[in-house]
Amino acid sequence: MSTMRAVQVVGYHQNLEMTEVDVPEPTGPYDVVVKIGGAGVCRTDLHILEGQWAEKSGVTLPYTIGHENAGWVHATGSAVTNVAEGDKVIVHPLITCGLCRACRSGDDVHCEASAFPGIDTDGGYAEYLRTSARSVVKIDDSLEPADVAALADAGLTAYHAAAKAARRLTPRDRCVIIGAGGLGHIGIQVLKAISPAELIVVDRNPDAVKLAVSIGADHGVVAEGKQVEEVLALTGGNGAEVLIDFVGEGGATAEGIRMLRRAGDYHVVGYGENIDVPTIDIISTEINIIGNLVGSYNDLCDLMALAARGAVKLHTAKYALDDFQSAIDDLDAGKVRGRAILTP
Amino acid sequence: MSTMRAVQVVGYHQNLEMTEVDVPEPTGPYDVVVKIGGAGVCRTDLHILEGQWAEKSGVTLPYTIGHENAGWVHATGSAVTNVAEGDKVIVHPLITCGLCRACRSGDDVHCEASAFPGIDTDGGYAEYLRTSARSVVKIDDSLEPADVAALADAGLTAYHAAAKAARRLTPRDRCVIIGAGGLGHIGIQVLKAISPAELIVVDRNPDAVKLAVSIGADHGVVAEGKQVEEVLALTGGNGAEVLIDFVGEGGATAEGIRMLRRAGDYHVVGYGENIDVPTIDIISTEINIIGNLVGSYNDLCDLMALAARGAVKLHTAKYALDDFQSAIDDLDAGKVRGRAILTP
Amino acid sequence: MSTMRAVQVVGYHQNLEMTEVDVPEPTGPYDVVVKIGGAGVCRTDLHILEGQWAEKSGVTLPYTIGHENAGWVHATGSAVTNVAEGDKVIVHPLITCGLCRACRSGDDVHCEASAFPGIDTDGGYAEYLRTSARSVVKIDDSLEPADVAALADAGLTAYHAAAKAARRLTPRDRCVIIGAGGLGHIGIQVLKAISPAELIVVDRNPDAVKLAVSIGADHGVVAEGKQVEEVLALTGGNGAEVLIDFVGEGGATAEGIRMLRRAGDYHVVGYGENIDVPTIDIISTEINIIGNLVGSYNDLCDLMALAARGAVKLHTAKYALDDFQSAIDDLDAGKVRGRAILTP
Amino acid sequence: MSTMRAVQVVGYHQNLEMTEVDVPEPTGPYDVVVKIGGAGVCRTDLHILEGQWAEKSGVTLPYTIGHENAGWVHATGSAVTNVAEGDKVIVHPLITCGLCRACRSGDDVHCEASAFPGIDTDGGYAEYLRTSARSVVKIDDSLEPADVAALADAGLTAYHAAAKAARRLTPRDRCVIIGAGGLGHIGIQVLKAISPAELIVVDRNPDAVKLAVSIGADHGVVAEGKQVEEVLALTGGNGAEVLIDFVGEGGATAEGIRMLRRAGDYHVVGYGENIDVPTIDIISTEINIIGNLVGSYNDLCDLMALAARGAVKLHTAKYALDDFQSAIDDLDAGKVRGRAILTP
Repeated sequence: MSTMRAVQVVGYHQNLEMTEVDVPEPTGPYDVVVKIGGAGVCRTDLHILEGQWAEKSGVTLPYTIGHENAGWVHATGSAVTNVAEGDKVIVHPLITCGLCRACRSGDDVHCEASAFPGIDTDGGYAEYLRTSARSVVKIDDSLEPADVAALADAGLTAYHAAAKAARRLTPRDRCVIIGAGGLGHIGIQVLKAISPAELIVVDRNPDAVKLAVSIGADHGVVAEGKQVEEVLALTGGNGAEVLIDFVGEGGATAEGIRMLRRAGDYHVVGYGENIDVPTIDIISTEINIIGNLVGSYNDLCDLMALAARGAVKLHTAKYALDDFQSAIDDLDAGKVRGRAILTP
Repeated sequence: MSTMRAVQVVGYHQNLEMTEVDVPEPTGPYDVVVKIGGAGVCRTDLHILEGQWAEKSGVTLPYTIGHENAGWVHATGSAVTNVAEGDKVIVHPLITCGLCRACRSGDDVHCEASAFPGIDTDGGYAEYLRTSARSVVKIDDSLEPADVAALADAGLTAYHAAAKAARRLTPRDRCVIIGAGGLGHIGIQVLKAISPAELIVVDRNPDAVKLAVSIGADHGVVAEGKQVEEVLALTGGNGAEVLIDFVGEGGATAEGIRMLRRAGDYHVVGYGENIDVPTIDIISTEINIIGNLVGSYNDLCDLMALAARGAVKLHTAKYALDDFQSAIDDLDAGKVRGRAILTP
Repeated sequence: MSTMRAVQVVGYHQNLEMTEVDVPEPTGPYDVVVKIGGAGVCRTDLHILEGQWAEKSGVTLPYTIGHENAGWVHATGSAVTNVAEGDKVIVHPLITCGLCRACRSGDDVHCEASAFPGIDTDGGYAEYLRTSARSVVKIDDSLEPADVAALADAGLTAYHAAAKAARRLTPRDRCVIIGAGGLGHIGIQVLKAISPAELIVVDRNPDAVKLAVSIGADHGVVAEGKQVEEVLALTGGNGAEVLIDFVGEGGATAEGIRMLRRAGDYHVVGYGENIDVPTIDIISTEINIIGNLVGSYNDLCDLMALAARGAVKLHTAKYALDDFQSAIDDLDAGKVRGRAILTP
Repeated sequence: MSTMRAVQVVGYHQNLEMTEVDVPEPTGPYDVVVKIGGAGVCRTDLHILEGQWAEKSGVTLPYTIGHENAGWVHATGSAVTNVAEGDKVIVHPLITCGLCRACRSGDDVHCEASAFPGIDTDGGYAEYLRTSARSVVKIDDSLEPADVAALADAGLTAYHAAAKAARRLTPRDRCVIIGAGGLGHIGIQVLKAISPAELIVVDRNPDAVKLAVSIGADHGVVAEGKQVEEVLALTGGNGAEVLIDFVGEGGATAEGIRMLRRAGDYHVVGYGENIDVPTIDIISTEINIIGNLVGSYNDLCDLMALAARGAVKLHTAKYALDDFQSAIDDLDAGKVRGRAILTP
């Protein structure tokens, strides 16, 4: 058994530490070991270090962090038939059972017995990661693991919400996107690719709005206090049929609901504050408030199809695995444009 | 032009008054005048008298109250082709334009230019009512206007929510119904008729729960403080796939959301309090909060089909039109079992 | 390794033969060995003996026949978590891979790498059967394997078509069922349980029509040459919104399409003749012709939920496993009422 | 009452004749008279002259032909609220009742009491046309009636099929389009705008294939005998999830069905030959054969939204109304590229 480098959580409110651990091997029949090509550094990783996930995940320290992973298949369990050594893959963030009702219905994110590498078991800030045959998606030859790794979680969440939202969107509909940051940025590209609706993007940051328009938004609104009025003006005074809120805090939800048309759908993706709406308003306008979690395995396959044809692109800042602390520090300091990626 | 009796709002915080007014005539090409067979007395009528709707409706006093109506076609405008004099009909509560996008899509309750007889124009506490060809539904020979009038609004709202909820219900799913009063009572019968789900009814009133079970609920839960735990116990600890809340106040919404399974649908029908839920809870369980208004014209046709075969029944207490004050007083005093109906 | 009795195909156009073979053991991690409680005898088994499936299945003789199975879990592979020894189960007819797109979407019957015990590998006319964790559905305590075995394939096919058909059925719609034999009989019970539509059953056999009405059909039509006209008369001259054809031969499809309303759905389940319709008729009435295969794993779970509450019942004629030839002969001679079941 | 020029059918197997008739006036409350800006010349018009529609339409000669119309509102009936004199409009080909179940559900093309100007009543080869408030769609300022007229019928049919087909299309799916002529040409642009699927276009004409690729098709296949094999090769040997057949004759349907994946949808738009498929093939692959008629009023609104943003364009050849015979002759001789349009 050979060893590898892995970046581990050794204690909360402490820095991560590089250590040498055994290379994981397939122990179960459906296990797949992936040689990491890129591991996304996510704000959730900062929250883990602050201990916010300690109780919820119940993970035992030390363990290897990192939940946005892509690479090459290194070894497979005895029953694996969908990938083979050497295949280039992106890794769905969850390991799911395949046998519960949710898994049998394609809603695997609601699996009754899932594991979450990087959160409650060893993740991808390392040279190798053990996951499952059910979690690996082969990617197109034209794509590189380090370039798409961040689509495994952040991108997948944006895809999922955009795809759900798009189901009812016709050429006459408007979709408001609140928040043109990491997720919103992907959401806009996805909506552009899969839906004929008019896209109105709202963000406090004028640069983010500018970028949104450059990648396909039909209208950009800089949120400076008049954003509700501006969206209403852009929608004939009626509000939008659909809204996706990638922010979920700082008053976004109350404002967002005012931007919604009768019978409109409000998609919650970002979180922080409470949805707090009088039931009379919900029924008299017959609006829907729709939760959105990370996407399913199928969603990830669909997103990779869009990525393969260049319809969804993500700016990344790459760091060597050994420079993990710089990546963490830069993210914490707001210095990363796009997504920080560790490459072994 | 002959005259008729009509019960009118003459001032807020004042009793209704019986008066003599002209019998309405068809003035527009699609007008239909209905000879009233029954007019439901609704809690909203009490709220109107308290002035709660004064500003919202903008109605000019005096006007004739009553928004749950059924009877016989008495006269028709020049362009009416779907009904003829003498036809037995129930009256959809809204008069809709037929030309806006909502009307063209079957979502007529979201019509951009609707009128609401009994709320913002003359209603049905009278001998005759003027409505539109777009609002009258012929009913089966076996049904009597006075027996079905209350299905025009209260019943229609319950049908609409139940039909929307039922779209995803399979034989393995559970649907919780909070509130087995007027609307809940109809909702249970509708769900029984159109869905294979297991029905769990929750109400504070043990008699209402008993009645619910007698008309088809699979489980009845008396809400005495342990209702969340009881529903969880009845659903394998997971909560229900779908919940319809006919109460919407007194803590129902917070309790209801705890009764919901991951990816579950919470249907809001009753109103009063706020929906107040952390966005993190909405996204981590991926639940949906779904508004429900009164049903469409198509919903009313469907409900009448169920009524014609005896699948939906409503207990009514009938009062002569002249006894309108007794009906109002009995409703206010909580003495009406089922629905009070005025019959001219 | 112990041995068991098994009834095998030893050659085409030859009788089945009872033989002694090894009891199967779990060899793969997801294998499940079921002790057979009941194995349905199906018309397909007769066709297998006639050699009709020889080329298509590519099976090597001898092998054990029987594809409608239920019983108790006897042994499990190392990775099985959803059932345990002793569990009472019904067996989905296919062994599916769990990894292809179809499996990941809940459409497991379109699995790209499935096996079909009783058709292309050893089946259930035996004391034990090897299947997969992905194929076993736990059944309610109140159900007996020998009573429900025939729901595993015939019943599942009827459920699948009825559930697909029911998606668009409202209380105002009519659903015509052509053929009230084994599958139609189940289909009627399922539609009654999950849909509010009016059911019109058409069959040549007056006894089958009588039975159909007794289990819930709203109208029965004996097909004696005027069946199209009778169905049109029962549907206001317009035809039915939905039709399920469990016959598919002897002119059923041409007649059935004449019974369909504009924009109607024609569900093909039974087979034999060609669908042969002018494209001009398909487009001018905008009808749909919808194929239906056996149901998915989820469908089988749903059907078992209906069976557990007594909503779907099947008449069975039981034969000891040793009397397999009598069961085959009786089926061939048309002497079996309901479904013949072998019980070890 | 003033008069106008109108081109009329005066007898079958005879040339059309220009004549002077009264300008139509609004006689019903919902009538709208449109000053024609452009009237499409359609192959159906040739068929009308050959008498193919005589019996079906029951029209009394002489009457004015022309069913693809756009222009400006000239006069309105007393109850019209959705358009006003001077509005630029495209005209939905049907005049529908607004009261039947189909109209109340947004499926107005299945109206139980519709009229069809140009087919069974006076059409648009004239200076003015009488239609209904329910049939006029306001178009964007940037669009000219003569440029969009042909979208009223041919384009609308293509939109309708493409929009129905697109409902299930994801980024991983393939959609085959058979026929890249007038309708196919629009269908490709629509699919490109509303769906993320890969588009494979099949046509006998290499120029049509070239054009298809230039407007967005991902793959073009010239049908020279190997088209089924080529499509299978482009779809990993499995066939396409969805196919839209704009041809429907010359063997297209049999070939098309061979291009379909398991559980695939075959959309019939073009017509001529029979769909002739063994029921065993329909059920064993579980495919669907889906009829498509012209689009609804809502479809036309959606299509105009796409046209307004330049997503759907149509090549037109304009002829003065007085030159109607040249237009007819050119169409008959196959000399028209795109669509011939008469402009008064």
